[in-house]
Amino acid sequence: MNKIINHPDHMISEMLDGYLAMYGDQFEKIPNPNGKCNGMIRKDRRDKVSVVVGGGGGNEPWIIGYVGKGLADGAALGPVYTAPPARAILNVTKEVPHEKGVVYIAANHTGDVLNFELVSELAELEGIRTECVFVTDDITSAPIEHQEERRGVAGISMVVKIAGAAAEAGLELDEVVRIARKACANTYTFSVTTSPGYMPGSGKAMFEMPEGEIEYGMGFNGENGVLHTPLTSADEIADTLMKYLLDDIRPAEGDELAVFVNGFGFTSKLELCILSRRVHEILCEKGAAIHDMFTDELFCPQGTGGLSISIVRLDEELKKYYDAPAYAPFFKKMKMGDLRWETR
Amino acid sequence: MNKIINHPDHMISEMLDGYLAMYGDQFEKIPNPNGKCNGMIRKDRRDKVSVVVGGGGGNEPWIIGYVGKGLADGAALGPVYTAPPARAILNVTKEVPHEKGVVYIAANHTGDVLNFELVSELAELEGIRTECVFVTDDITSAPIEHQEERRGVAGISMVVKIAGAAAEAGLELDEVVRIARKACANTYTFSVTTSPGYMPGSGKAMFEMPEGEIEYGMGFNGENGVLHTPLTSADEIADTLMKYLLDDIRPAEGDELAVFVNGFGFTSKLELCILSRRVHEILCEKGAAIHDMFTDELFCPQGTGGLSISIVRLDEELKKYYDAPAYAPFFKKMKMGDLRWETR
Repeated sequence: MNKIINHPDHMISEMLDGYLAMYGDQFEKIPNPNGKCNGMIRKDRRDKVSVVVGGGGGNEPWIIGYVGKGLADGAALGPVYTAPPARAILNVTKEVPHEKGVVYIAANHTGDVLNFELVSELAELEGIRTECVFVTDDITSAPIEHQEERRGVAGISMVVKIAGAAAEAGLELDEVVRIARKACANTYTFSVTTSPGYMPGSGKAMFEMPEGEIEYGMGFNGENGVLHTPLTSADEIADTLMKYLLDDIRPAEGDELAVFVNGFGFTSKLELCILSRRVHEILCEKGAAIHDMFTDELFCPQGTGGLSISIVRLDEELKKYYDAPAYAPFFKKMKMGDLRWETR
Repeated sequence: MNKIINHPDHMISEMLDGYLAMYGDQFEKIPNPNGKCNGMIRKDRRDKVSVVVGGGGGNEPWIIGYVGKGLADGAALGPVYTAPPARAILNVTKEVPHEKGVVYIAANHTGDVLNFELVSELAELEGIRTECVFVTDDITSAPIEHQEERRGVAGISMVVKIAGAAAEAGLELDEVVRIARKACANTYTFSVTTSPGYMPGSGKAMFEMPEGEIEYGMGFNGENGVLHTPLTSADEIADTLMKYLLDDIRPAEGDELAVFVNGFGFTSKLELCILSRRVHEILCEKGAAIHDMFTDELFCPQGTGGLSISIVRLDEELKKYYDAPAYAPFFKKMKMGDLRWETR
């Protein structure tokens, strides 16, 4: 597939430069002596707990797009599909406000966990208190009894959003961490893949997938999913996605749910809305209380067809932070009433 | 290509139903007796000039996503890649606040022009004052001397945004129309296509395009562009796009520009940022005054690879309305300072 890049080795740093060319009033780059690993932070520093995210590139807007008001304060960027180097994470940690501590939020993948845990110890040596939250929303990667072993996918957007709002509200480190972990424990994601993504560097497909077939719960690198079927209708796809999700979540009477339909990039908004119609219908049939439902593209393995559904089970506390506005150029989550219209 | 739909005949109405299932607090459907054509309006009706948009489906978020605060008040939706029926436009016109008049904004395509002009006469018979603005931003479809013959593409987002802000500010019909026409006359778009889109109904490619080749200024249905080349680097693609655009615009010293890099859907944010880096660099080299630059996906022919760059030349008046916040679920354009943070 034709890719619009310069040299594969410079993709992440050039992406960051382009992002900062457009949004440099809000963000700045954290330079790195070896020029290879990169980080960025918010310019509007406040005396509060900071949230720092990190991971491999290639799923934009995750990670670069999760830094913003009501979201994260800084991001450490690894190469495409590779964990960020410890040095990048440490540099970002030192540059964000850290007197009140730093919460790290990353997906629960081996490389990310290793590097964030290492930096957590290094930061401690420098007198910076940190805590790690590894997001485990992918319901197909381990059974619910071993929820802590699950991988992190698109639900990480909701955990960062809730933790970011809690930090923005001025809560202390232990409280932000407790709320982030509660959000994580209550976030569930399941996906369907309809066509393979590509390696951004080469444009080569990540894996083979025959036309007319789809797979549920597939990993982004082609790891086997839980169900491989012929292509069916949007309504049947929604039925299958929601069956697996609701069997896993088992929402209780009165549970309020936030529902996020995340397009992988290649699947159009037309398709996402058609599928969302049936998802909403299913939840209504089951008597679920839908606190909020939306579709966006917040976690997009390059060029992949398909989507994931993330559901967050909200209590009053999570709802408060879920509802707070969040603003980053690629991650805007707010209500119409959150805007100042009267000044115009 | 695998598509997530039910029946091709129901795509637009099911999309609208899904959209309203998620965002029904803000919008409502305008039912149509024959059940075929559809329209939608904002629920928060105000006594002001209304802006109504319309066109064929398949380029979402255009059209459905352009209805919102600081944007349009209603939309008439045609079938995929087909102009909206006159009846749909008329129904929407009657349902939006129309005492102060209605501004129609559509792309300058034959079917859209015919139907909007017809409805404009029908509305007049019912005592509703209307004016049509047909957007002509595609610089490859006619020379600058015949700007009024150009097609409308992604720049329509900026015209709707500016006209919507002018209407929201309480301006009278003639003023909103004058400002919308000024925005239109100062909006220029040029594109590169890197892979063909597909027909949403069938999943079949819209046209053939050999791997390793790209085309500038191509129409969305495969109409010939102005330049067909082998795939080059992101920087070279940016150079070519900007050369054509700046030759057409010929910005004068001191002209302030708004620059919108519109991804077609299949091209990732990583690529859009890499290309934007060079676009910004070129504008700085030329001494242009960049008032604002951003990337988003606001006009997306299904599954197409590539992007367009739209440039709006702003004077003080246009800048005022360009800068006003705009809010719709798929079209959020605001600054961090436009949000009420203090209430949380």
